[in-house]
Amino acid sequence: MPQDDQLATADSEFDRATTVHRAEAGGYAADLRPGWDVGSGILNGGYLLAVAVRAAVADSPHPHPVAVSASYLRATPPGPATLAVTPGPAGRTLAHAGVVLSGAEGPTLSVQVTTATLAGDEPVHSSSPAPEVPPAEECLDAQPGADMGGRPVPAVGLRHRVETRLDPATAGWALGTPSGEPVMRAWMRLADGREPDPFALLLFADALPPTIWSMGLMGWAPTIQLQVLVRALPAPGWCLAESRATEIAGGWLDEECRIWDSTGRLVAQSRQLARAPR
Amino acid sequence: MPQDDQLATADSEFDRATTVHRAEAGGYAADLRPGWDVGSGILNGGYLLAVAVRAAVADSPHPHPVAVSASYLRATPPGPATLAVTPGPAGRTLAHAGVVLSGAEGPTLSVQVTTATLAGDEPVHSSSPAPEVPPAEECLDAQPGADMGGRPVPAVGLRHRVETRLDPATAGWALGTPSGEPVMRAWMRLADGREPDPFALLLFADALPPTIWSMGLMGWAPTIQLQVLVRALPAPGWCLAESRATEIAGGWLDEECRIWDSTGRLVAQSRQLARAPR
Repeated sequence: MPQDDQLATADSEFDRATTVHRAEAGGYAADLRPGWDVGSGILNGGYLLAVAVRAAVADSPHPHPVAVSASYLRATPPGPATLAVTPGPAGRTLAHAGVVLSGAEGPTLSVQVTTATLAGDEPVHSSSPAPEVPPAEECLDAQPGADMGGRPVPAVGLRHRVETRLDPATAGWALGTPSGEPVMRAWMRLADGREPDPFALLLFADALPPTIWSMGLMGWAPTIQLQVLVRALPAPGWCLAESRATEIAGGWLDEECRIWDSTGRLVAQSRQLARAPR
Repeated sequence: MPQDDQLATADSEFDRATTVHRAEAGGYAADLRPGWDVGSGILNGGYLLAVAVRAAVADSPHPHPVAVSASYLRATPPGPATLAVTPGPAGRTLAHAGVVLSGAEGPTLSVQVTTATLAGDEPVHSSSPAPEVPPAEECLDAQPGADMGGRPVPAVGLRHRVETRLDPATAGWALGTPSGEPVMRAWMRLADGREPDPFALLLFADALPPTIWSMGLMGWAPTIQLQVLVRALPAPGWCLAESRATEIAGGWLDEECRIWDSTGRLVAQSRQLARAPR
């Protein structure tokens, strides 16, 4: 495929892995990379979201996703995928689009995307200061192979792609002493050295370990529906992510995530409904 | 149209106003009622959401919306509307669907709906207790014509349909002394006497006055994208809703809303991205 059909930059592993190309049959195509998994070959929901939103942005007059809602219909396997974009109203302030990502077995992810052009305006009101967390170098490295209290770190490809340094206050589960509060905090950055942008924030919004691990429930919590709001362009450096389950009931849990950039500014908010492990 | 094509019950004004009928051309049809407006003939976003989700539920094996994400593409006028439902995977635990609501001018609202069957399970974890608010009879009646500190209440049809009793702590704006904190709390119930259910929660999630009124910014804040999670079936009686803007910046604000039922149980959570008035 000619180089100028390549719509995302390819300077980093993240950019290459989320690149979309115009497909001859219309819409876009992507090659979903197996390395962005959360174990057992299951691709991470934030990675898939970044790929889908690239297709929406490629068709939009605006460069930044500001509101994204995704329904995870089925697990998406690695390999070729197609992206069908349904454009909505587009104006000077914002544009709407729908994207359906399909693998060989049919649609797996349906996303509604609002794009806009984010500026650096100072907040008129902000009530979500970054929590106090030790600097990244004093936090626990969650990369496979890292020494995390002597416990084996699960083989999760995502942890090779996203450097994740867990706040010791919320990492008791890794040492066999879960805190009992469904909260996770970690510094995050792309392992390829690329600085954060709104697409990386979509990835980070679903990249913390499940909050229920802090309750001693070590299963997976598959995402059913996820909304991410991108509130500002992140400054270079580490991002700090905090996720929290408000309520675990009836086989369901919510996970609310907030992300601050290296200057302490709130740059993203998200909430997902997930299935609780039995 | 024959009575047995009527898919929602019609015992209450809310039920009648959100009824959908199977359309001969496929999909569903609704008659959007002018009385559910927020001023200037603009229909309330929560009302429209309830109508759209009725169509998803009519086609689902499950009766309860548990996760709903809506993109508000354009203002929706009162009058005839069509609802196109795209079914997604449906199983024993949950089902997915997309709904597009269109008026005479084309699509105005696109919604992703996950339905399930909510049971009365006790929470395993809950960290969102209801805030302390005076009983409804000691709160400020926000119905048009009510005495709200001697100030005229804006002519908003929605306030005739949803009884809204504002917590005096967050109602300073109505008395000319905004609190300066973008928070709103109010007791709510349907004015027709119908008890709350998940559809009423979709309505309540977008029925508080804009939080920015508490900042003294008395304009509208049009909803761009709204996600609502329904966490439990509400008990009969008043619901308590609290909304809060975390950040107002760059012409955008978020509004996060939580709703508790009369027993103090968290029954819904929502977050919207809205445009901030200039």
